[in-house]
Amino acid sequence: MNSLIFTAESTAHGIVERDFTVDGVPGVLWSPEGAGRAPLVLQAHGGGNHKKHPAMSGRAALLVRDCGYHVAVLDTPGHGDRPRTEHDEREVEALFAARAAGEPEGPIVVRYNDHLAKLAVPEYHALLDALQELPEIGTDGPVGFWGNNMGTAIGVPFVAAEPRIRAAVFGQHWPDVLAAHAARITVPIEFALQWDDEHISREEGLALFDAFASAEKSLHVNSGRHKELPRFEAESAVRFFARHLGGAAGA
Amino acid sequence: MNSLIFTAESTAHGIVERDFTVDGVPGVLWSPEGAGRAPLVLQAHGGGNHKKHPAMSGRAALLVRDCGYHVAVLDTPGHGDRPRTEHDEREVEALFAARAAGEPEGPIVVRYNDHLAKLAVPEYHALLDALQELPEIGTDGPVGFWGNNMGTAIGVPFVAAEPRIRAAVFGQHWPDVLAAHAARITVPIEFALQWDDEHISREEGLALFDAFASAEKSLHVNSGRHKELPRFEAESAVRFFARHLGGAAGA
Repeated sequence: MNSLIFTAESTAHGIVERDFTVDGVPGVLWSPEGAGRAPLVLQAHGGGNHKKHPAMSGRAALLVRDCGYHVAVLDTPGHGDRPRTEHDEREVEALFAARAAGEPEGPIVVRYNDHLAKLAVPEYHALLDALQELPEIGTDGPVGFWGNNMGTAIGVPFVAAEPRIRAAVFGQHWPDVLAAHAARITVPIEFALQWDDEHISREEGLALFDAFASAEKSLHVNSGRHKELPRFEAESAVRFFARHLGGAAGA
Repeated sequence: MNSLIFTAESTAHGIVERDFTVDGVPGVLWSPEGAGRAPLVLQAHGGGNHKKHPAMSGRAALLVRDCGYHVAVLDTPGHGDRPRTEHDEREVEALFAARAAGEPEGPIVVRYNDHLAKLAVPEYHALLDALQELPEIGTDGPVGFWGNNMGTAIGVPFVAAEPRIRAAVFGQHWPDVLAAHAARITVPIEFALQWDDEHISREEGLALFDAFASAEKSLHVNSGRHKELPRFEAESAVRFFARHLGGAAGA
């Protein structure tokens, strides 16, 4: 029994946005206006961002409007409406110092994301427990996961341990900590990486894709640097979920 | 002045199919029924196939129906309605012998496709000259190229030498002969390879993708063997052309 408490609700352009907390962790649930039972996609946001960053709300809008799905995301510890610990402050400082010095960010991001994922993964299991108690989601509907960058650092261990996830979209992370989790994932995945990523080498990106045990897996590589992931990849991910999670009952 | 002669015409499901010869080479042109001026996509078929193989007519149907485009493809020398030379017979025999013996097919396919491409590329330039004389295509409309396998062996040297091509979809070929041509291609490309291809290694496939000089390039890798390219890649290619060639005037 998880304590899901809705704290605010608004509707715009056919999308209902409900803020909530689950065991005190703030999150947001987007749904089609007047939605009945429909599949659910859980998202996790990127490092330094938050649950309502345009990448999250924009991808959710595509899933809600094109597929009629419910979409939920939590603030990661130390992000959004959640306080930073002293440990968070030290890691963020270390990252900015490395960036300013032109040193590799990878080692710091990998260890900090691993720390955050260890805290966030149980929160995502609890989120799914709580959302499945809602009549419009239920315990028998298909569930997907979508997270890039830090969202992948959280999502790969989460999906590896969560048999309720049927399909997942990941991308743009180092394989160090994640490859062992990826080797336990067998559901279909779509994975994005940037061919000219200044932080994650081609070999590192390909090694993580290769690690997934999924019989059905797709890799999308695009030219460009780390932050230049093309917008059409979001549309591709939506089609991927539509193939694997099916349509909304009322859509 | 090229001699384009239409030899047969039929219409089904809103698609007009016109057989033709251009300088004696047989081809087919698919168009939307009642089409006005619209972009053109040239296709080249795979080894052992022909201009009306379901892969060709199926991809054409997507382009005609979803985008309102004209689509044309030629029989490659030694394929479809064209005679085989003694050289063709020897190479096909060598390929089948290698296959039966469990020996690598790559060296034979690479050299035979190179031979065929040297014959086919001038035919594709002549095809484009001839089609641009048709009022529904014209000399100023956008033109794309789409060919996988042997279609890539023909398409890469063709597009490298053909400034009228604005965007191209390639995939699944060894880099040996093609990388030098790819290095001269700067238009947007989408490139497909199979992660478990029993003929083309990952390193070979990635090396050809890497060779393209295009600022905008996308690689789609899917799990599965050589012949298991997922059908949704055709839909992805159609969206790629829609982004780069635009819509039909009347669509």
